Amino acid sequence: MAAPARHFASDNSASTHPEVLAAIMAANEGHALAYGADRWTASALALFQAEFGEGSAAYLVLGGTGANVVGLGALLRPWEAVLCATTAHINVDECGAPERFLGCKLLPLATPDGKLRPEMIRAAVGGLGEDHQAHHARPRVISVSQSTEYGTVYTPDELRALSDVAREFGLLFHMDGARLSNAAAALDLPLRALTADVGVDVLSFGGTKNGAMGAEAVVMFDPALDEALRFGRKQATQLPSKMRYVAAQFEALLRDGLWRRNAAHANRMARRLARGAAEVPGITITQPVDANAVFARLPRGRIAPLQERRSFYIWDEAGSEVRWMCSFDTTEGDVDAFISEIRAVLA
Amino acid sequence: MAAPARHFASDNSASTHPEVLAAIMAANEGHALAYGADRWTASALALFQAEFGEGSAAYLVLGGTGANVVGLGALLRPWEAVLCATTAHINVDECGAPERFLGCKLLPLATPDGKLRPEMIRAAVGGLGEDHQAHHARPRVISVSQSTEYGTVYTPDELRALSDVAREFGLLFHMDGARLSNAAAALDLPLRALTADVGVDVLSFGGTKNGAMGAEAVVMFDPALDEALRFGRKQATQLPSKMRYVAAQFEALLRDGLWRRNAAHANRMARRLARGAAEVPGITITQPVDANAVFARLPRGRIAPLQERRSFYIWDEAGSEVRWMCSFDTTEGDVDAFISEIRAVLA
Amino acid sequence: MAAPARHFASDNSASTHPEVLAAIMAANEGHALAYGADRWTASALALFQAEFGEGSAAYLVLGGTGANVVGLGALLRPWEAVLCATTAHINVDECGAPERFLGCKLLPLATPDGKLRPEMIRAAVGGLGEDHQAHHARPRVISVSQSTEYGTVYTPDELRALSDVAREFGLLFHMDGARLSNAAAALDLPLRALTADVGVDVLSFGGTKNGAMGAEAVVMFDPALDEALRFGRKQATQLPSKMRYVAAQFEALLRDGLWRRNAAHANRMARRLARGAAEVPGITITQPVDANAVFARLPRGRIAPLQERRSFYIWDEAGSEVRWMCSFDTTEGDVDAFISEIRAVLA
Amino acid sequence: MAAPARHFASDNSASTHPEVLAAIMAANEGHALAYGADRWTASALALFQAEFGEGSAAYLVLGGTGANVVGLGALLRPWEAVLCATTAHINVDECGAPERFLGCKLLPLATPDGKLRPEMIRAAVGGLGEDHQAHHARPRVISVSQSTEYGTVYTPDELRALSDVAREFGLLFHMDGARLSNAAAALDLPLRALTADVGVDVLSFGGTKNGAMGAEAVVMFDPALDEALRFGRKQATQLPSKMRYVAAQFEALLRDGLWRRNAAHANRMARRLARGAAEVPGITITQPVDANAVFARLPRGRIAPLQERRSFYIWDEAGSEVRWMCSFDTTEGDVDAFISEIRAVLA
Repeated sequence: MAAPARHFASDNSASTHPEVLAAIMAANEGHALAYGADRWTASALALFQAEFGEGSAAYLVLGGTGANVVGLGALLRPWEAVLCATTAHINVDECGAPERFLGCKLLPLATPDGKLRPEMIRAAVGGLGEDHQAHHARPRVISVSQSTEYGTVYTPDELRALSDVAREFGLLFHMDGARLSNAAAALDLPLRALTADVGVDVLSFGGTKNGAMGAEAVVMFDPALDEALRFGRKQATQLPSKMRYVAAQFEALLRDGLWRRNAAHANRMARRLARGAAEVPGITITQPVDANAVFARLPRGRIAPLQERRSFYIWDEAGSEVRWMCSFDTTEGDVDAFISEIRAVLA
Repeated sequence: MAAPARHFASDNSASTHPEVLAAIMAANEGHALAYGADRWTASALALFQAEFGEGSAAYLVLGGTGANVVGLGALLRPWEAVLCATTAHINVDECGAPERFLGCKLLPLATPDGKLRPEMIRAAVGGLGEDHQAHHARPRVISVSQSTEYGTVYTPDELRALSDVAREFGLLFHMDGARLSNAAAALDLPLRALTADVGVDVLSFGGTKNGAMGAEAVVMFDPALDEALRFGRKQATQLPSKMRYVAAQFEALLRDGLWRRNAAHANRMARRLARGAAEVPGITITQPVDANAVFARLPRGRIAPLQERRSFYIWDEAGSEVRWMCSFDTTEGDVDAFISEIRAVLA
Repeated sequence: MAAPARHFASDNSASTHPEVLAAIMAANEGHALAYGADRWTASALALFQAEFGEGSAAYLVLGGTGANVVGLGALLRPWEAVLCATTAHINVDECGAPERFLGCKLLPLATPDGKLRPEMIRAAVGGLGEDHQAHHARPRVISVSQSTEYGTVYTPDELRALSDVAREFGLLFHMDGARLSNAAAALDLPLRALTADVGVDVLSFGGTKNGAMGAEAVVMFDPALDEALRFGRKQATQLPSKMRYVAAQFEALLRDGLWRRNAAHANRMARRLARGAAEVPGITITQPVDANAVFARLPRGRIAPLQERRSFYIWDEAGSEVRWMCSFDTTEGDVDAFISEIRAVLA
Repeated sequence: MAAPARHFASDNSASTHPEVLAAIMAANEGHALAYGADRWTASALALFQAEFGEGSAAYLVLGGTGANVVGLGALLRPWEAVLCATTAHINVDECGAPERFLGCKLLPLATPDGKLRPEMIRAAVGGLGEDHQAHHARPRVISVSQSTEYGTVYTPDELRALSDVAREFGLLFHMDGARLSNAAAALDLPLRALTADVGVDVLSFGGTKNGAMGAEAVVMFDPALDEALRFGRKQATQLPSKMRYVAAQFEALLRDGLWRRNAAHANRMARRLARGAAEVPGITITQPVDANAVFARLPRGRIAPLQERRSFYIWDEAGSEVRWMCSFDTTEGDVDAFISEIRAVLA
């Protein structure tokens, strides 16, 4: 049988990084109290705090949608609403979990590239006034994805500008950082420079798409949210039972910068792919390749034949736009072979 | 440093069984489409169907509370209520997750041993009548835990009697089988004899407390529930991203009866512990030791000193009752040492 | 055709008091901005504040269940729970609306007479400890019904004792005052002596059962709750559109003490009924007749024949206990005729 | 003091029609069982059935937002979504009540005039496919407002086309008919021609904006929805206690066509206003005046001075667009005086 295929469908198609797997195995000794009262969790939480700063705290959870609903739930009362991009994962890819669990309304804003901008927020909340009779769900949280679902990355200045407008209007600032590692690697900045330092209140921090087996966390920068996060996590069915195995994954990612090495590699592969594909006649790269995603337009009839060679997703059927994701285990060989396949199919 | 402690706090303090760990490692090859479109998941689902019967289907999830809310959610409309024992995990140990996610009311019924009986159901629903004006949440589901939170086990006849009363009153039948393996091992019966064959509609099937690292499933016996379970799982934040690693765990447990060997061993250790402890003056075993839990009453002042030697939980502060759980990795040596400690502390 | 029957089914079987009806008609002039921006509402809110004190504010709503979910919603986050009597309206007669709308768990406590006592609260919350892992919904609100569903009345001292235990454990204090008027009339105390003065945080104040056509209010004693009540009311579908007609009803009830006259009369009729019925052999009055309800046990076979003469409800089928409610428009003639009917049926 | 002002803010600023008030007074006799077991309710429900057809049934409720959440709740499971216009009342004016109560996602579609069209539905649901992994909330209901929030009216053919596309994609059809009477009057058609006859599954039928004091109803055309509507109404806190007074209002509106006379008059006043205003230089009428609303653009600086003379709402701050609503009690004199005021302010 041939070697197992690597494709470009998603970074959660990737395997588990060997160092993460080793950490899981090392945690498999004896008994450990469940739900986080174990030494692996203590160690992982300390690494999180070292990474994100003194005032921060992490809450380990099972999945990315779970991280989002737990984190947003700590910031929102049910009559409050979330401003997000129309393309946000919370808006399109979570089956309405935020509405279901939080009872809250999302207020999606159209963007060209998945990135919110201060003027969009102003336009959305500026005219609301006092609303004495409470007819409208009250905008309360700005939620950004970093890197975005379009593979674009907010600079610290862009994030700070959003944070400023949030403070101006009494809003809180949430970040879906399922791919924050890719953004930090792209900008060559520490994680805290994109979160604590720019006014993020609550962060979903992803491990799964960056080499973990299944490990996500909610990180908060305001100790007053502790109770909401602890009880919200349990109530959202996101409290891991044998938490040591989730903790061990984060230990592996955070201890010696594995998270950055993995993300930087995935980003590099995406740039390589974009460069190569852009040279193929008929291909247009449609978004800046800031992180590990490549968005491309190609002739409609060529999409299906190319998918037969390698898995990937159509992003916009009408616009004939596709998404190619790279991950920590994508190799230069994978990329170059795929470019050849693209060239062959489009010839 | 001494060997890592094994204690009696809970079966989710246990480690991961080496065969499960090996299966996880074996699944770590190449790329696999996320969310279940992979060969490990296909294989695990086939094993589930072989175990539970033609008409059944399994949905892999991340946690036990998650399995319960997803499964109950497929059976309930929000104005319907769940009849359960006051001691049920869904009632006392899930932080209100069922109420939060389902919007439903639980109607807890007092039991001596964690087991519902037909006459309790009759008393609860018999007098309700038509309720034309809809003042009362409508009882719709009977939920049992098998084995129960008291370590007791329903016989097939007891389950069938509940199922009969359910049909009589137009109710559905849900089983929280976080420890179904222990019940099946105790009765030396196949899993289906305690589920499909006695009229269970939806089952939460637990792997985590029986040697898995983190693997639960919802099993349904009515194909009409498929959409509710698929969408409910996603919306409940319980759809595993890299599902192959959850599937691999179930493959290990289900392929050659590892689930039964693990559970039978844990049950054996509980009986050994109960036998030994019962001989210690001052100890009363308070519940039948059908599965892997031992409930005991001991002099109030002796609880804390004993807890200093080995972790375990107080079950009923007022009644001076404690719970000792055994797991697949509890050894005869652990049990015998603990009996000695009990004897020493109570001397 | 005979004069329309008056019976003993419920105080919401009663008609609308003529003064309330006159106030509604008087409000029917010209246009008035909807949702409360009208002069009748301003006037009613001022009367509420005069009645309940400077720090209070009222929010008019459409129904009693609505008042309860709006008021509780201002006090609770979704992982928090409500301690209430098993007999509480919120627990048995609202079809699970609190669970549905709030996502919260109710923790019902058994009582002999519908009244919670401090020791019940202590027993329920005393042993909970910190719950670092958040397994249990967090008790946060004590909810009492005044008068209770058993027609019993809390004294100010009893309420203050509950309020004290609430403060001791960090709980808030909610009162379902659908029949608060009856309690205040029974004790000959101002409304504030049973609410603001004894530490109630949020009150549901009922008009409908005391002569209104359909008028309820949430009264709060902590200005910080304003936003939660305004937005919660709208979101709970309880914001009256043409609010002036609700306001006019409360103006009629509050302006010259009509609320007290109505309630005192209903209470008097209940005492008269209890006195007369108690003399009938075979009848046992089962609860103190503090307010406008009479609970009685009578021979099982005599219930249905008596119901054929006058409508009333069976309270406890098994215990052969019935409820007879009096209202503002119950006459001495109605009561005496009913006593004769009871005597005839039991003869 | 001058005669009370009549203005153009909203049709729920209007008073109660004298015939409705008379019916309320006539219902104020003796006792009547609460929650609908009374003769006025029986009579009103029969009138509803006569109006909407054999297979229909009405459920009286307290408010319009309540009618919408109850009706939609009977059609939806929580993972299902509602396709509606961005301008729909359920989307912008209900403070997120649908999301809160139903847990469902709304999928708003942009329209030029508040009216959905089949091609918008096709574009929204056509590409969804099977969604085996359930990432996206599942479109399940099309909800239209008739007449729309822009005062436009769907013809029967337009409704039938939407109903056809609904059936094609397995969707259900909901109508927010808070102003259905205005639409039926505008088209000179019976109510059933715009509902039962064109495939509506569930209707919110408004009385309050058409001369009632506070009376709304959910009308369903599929008997299988009965349980969902009865229990949903109670759980949504929308079951009127003294229901006879709500029923009496509908009796007055439905018995002799008062609903149509009221609506036709309001429509006529809107046309008169639009005609007169259109002649004022600087005024542009921005939407077809199909029913009782007039939308107009006027010079930004003239809005506030005009509002000082008569209350009305700004609809679109940026576009300098306002809304003028007429109601059953708007007189020709009111309209002509307002046109003079407009002329004066814009001069």
